[in-house]
Amino acid sequence: MAKAELLWHTVQAIGKLDKKAMSEAQSRQDRLTKPTGSLGRLEEISVQLAGIQGKPIPQINHKAIIVMAGDHGVVAEGVSAYPQEVTPQMVINFLKGGAGINAIASQIGARTVFADMGVASDIPPHPQLLARKVAYGTKNMAIGPAMTEEEAIASLETGIEILYFQAALGLDIVGTGDMGIGNTTASSAICAVITGKSCAAVTGRGTGVDDEQLKHKIEVIEKALAINQPDPDKPLSVLAKVGGFEIGGLAGVMLGAAARRIPVVVDGLISGAAALIATGLAPRSRDFLIAGHVSVEAGHKIMLAHLGLKPLVDLGMRLGEGTGAAIGIFLCETAARVLSEMATFEEAGVSGRSD
Amino acid sequence: MAKAELLWHTVQAIGKLDKKAMSEAQSRQDRLTKPTGSLGRLEEISVQLAGIQGKPIPQINHKAIIVMAGDHGVVAEGVSAYPQEVTPQMVINFLKGGAGINAIASQIGARTVFADMGVASDIPPHPQLLARKVAYGTKNMAIGPAMTEEEAIASLETGIEILYFQAALGLDIVGTGDMGIGNTTASSAICAVITGKSCAAVTGRGTGVDDEQLKHKIEVIEKALAINQPDPDKPLSVLAKVGGFEIGGLAGVMLGAAARRIPVVVDGLISGAAALIATGLAPRSRDFLIAGHVSVEAGHKIMLAHLGLKPLVDLGMRLGEGTGAAIGIFLCETAARVLSEMATFEEAGVSGRSD
Repeated sequence: MAKAELLWHTVQAIGKLDKKAMSEAQSRQDRLTKPTGSLGRLEEISVQLAGIQGKPIPQINHKAIIVMAGDHGVVAEGVSAYPQEVTPQMVINFLKGGAGINAIASQIGARTVFADMGVASDIPPHPQLLARKVAYGTKNMAIGPAMTEEEAIASLETGIEILYFQAALGLDIVGTGDMGIGNTTASSAICAVITGKSCAAVTGRGTGVDDEQLKHKIEVIEKALAINQPDPDKPLSVLAKVGGFEIGGLAGVMLGAAARRIPVVVDGLISGAAALIATGLAPRSRDFLIAGHVSVEAGHKIMLAHLGLKPLVDLGMRLGEGTGAAIGIFLCETAARVLSEMATFEEAGVSGRSD
Repeated sequence: MAKAELLWHTVQAIGKLDKKAMSEAQSRQDRLTKPTGSLGRLEEISVQLAGIQGKPIPQINHKAIIVMAGDHGVVAEGVSAYPQEVTPQMVINFLKGGAGINAIASQIGARTVFADMGVASDIPPHPQLLARKVAYGTKNMAIGPAMTEEEAIASLETGIEILYFQAALGLDIVGTGDMGIGNTTASSAICAVITGKSCAAVTGRGTGVDDEQLKHKIEVIEKALAINQPDPDKPLSVLAKVGGFEIGGLAGVMLGAAARRIPVVVDGLISGAAALIATGLAPRSRDFLIAGHVSVEAGHKIMLAHLGLKPLVDLGMRLGEGTGAAIGIFLCETAARVLSEMATFEEAGVSGRSD
């Protein structure tokens, strides 16, 4: 599969966590002026960041949130509370700075990168928009595959290229975000296939469908799986059959970041689906992922358990766009700053334990 | 009790949440470009902030963490893993910028205020240290009252004064923090008295005592309650009998902030004990409190349940110093920024729901 050269090179470039850096980070944590372990998850995260970056004292200076948009043919089945035109409208809202992710990214000092991976309509060119349409939306997965395998590879490689370019600009941590009417349907489908749970267990209300619409959404996903028969052991094929262009792009971002030893803070259900694809293609990439939050969407908790990731916060959020990832990046920076800026007992002349 | 004039004036100045501002904030949240309710706790917090500040769009610009230090006579009973000399050593570490709270406060752009409310030894004068010793540490509560009622009032009024001065400098939100070897013992005692739970249920390992020391710590608290017989309906007396100077000071900060309509982000166990005293003295003050996090200390969860406060995060932290409050302030700022900066559906030209 010579066409997928960038993808396979990237997968093979993914290394292991740097155990030496992790051990040095842990040792420093234990000498800082606080009771051992008293910063809890922040200490764990600081050690993971050290292992990812390969530095005993990890640095979080350059931060980015990469938000990818795509449309989904399955909306023809009536699975969303909002019309498809909202996808490009929200992309324009991102570019104007009016969305939730704009507010939170600005607060944490992260740059934002917006990519059209496959919105179903044309979006006027904008200096802040990466126009990387793989196609005008996926096909309806309730009838056949959402995309071809070539398109799946293209979405992954586009994500890798976008990440590599951002890495070249300087990038210490990256968050993933999404926009796409219908994409909780695709993400729930990926979740059901890869985790083996029932469609009913992994499907939530998305932007806010009612009980009857939820029942219908589950039936549509069941139909898509019955027709496409995706094989959980073939992540590229799962992406093609029931995925989306933004999901493939985000999986590419994760693979590229892992290859470049850049920590990735994963957002909610859609980024979680991308993580299932990325870790299916490259199991080692999992160690480079940090779950920013757990969303209200039922499938997200199941995805995180499958990935073995423990979310940093649970704030009852379900907006997407990378908003949960942005909060996670803030906490990763806290973890790194504590390790870097706090004095040790020796430096501060503070007495140790009595016993 | 003419001597407590500032305290009672402050208690009486505490008003109610501004329902009109809250309703306007909620209405704006519902028009912002996101599915209704999709920012979860952040939306709830933004509405509470509106009610506290009395502004439909609350602002979080000026932020402060007030960290109060005090020593505890009960350390003579061997209840802590660290020697008492650590209290002043850590205060000096704060002043040098080497503690956990320095790193996190700097990250969130909050100023820090450090007050010696009753450290048992002299701390060299420092321009950044408020020297407000009520006494050289409390007395051993396992033998008799920790302080006199006059000292309890002095600690509360000092906290109020410190808050009022900070408010005059400009203050949109305040976080509370503590330092004091032995203060989890006093805080657990306050928790047992006011919530009515057993000493065993509310007592944790503090800075890290082992099983046997924990058993001893619980026995010491039981002894303190047996000897002092604090009445849960007399919060001032509870503070005097089993409290601490930093706990009284932080309760004063909370009362002063509520009187000035400034939201207070409460840290862990010690700040929680202060909140029990503050809300005992002025039940309305509760509406002005936001729980930044839930700490690992057993009593903290019980305190929050008693106060009816739901913590923003659970990161397995137990450091104190206001570190959990600082993370909470970040999230409150996120909540306020989202409400203030996001575009409405109308402004952005984004379509609403299909149904």
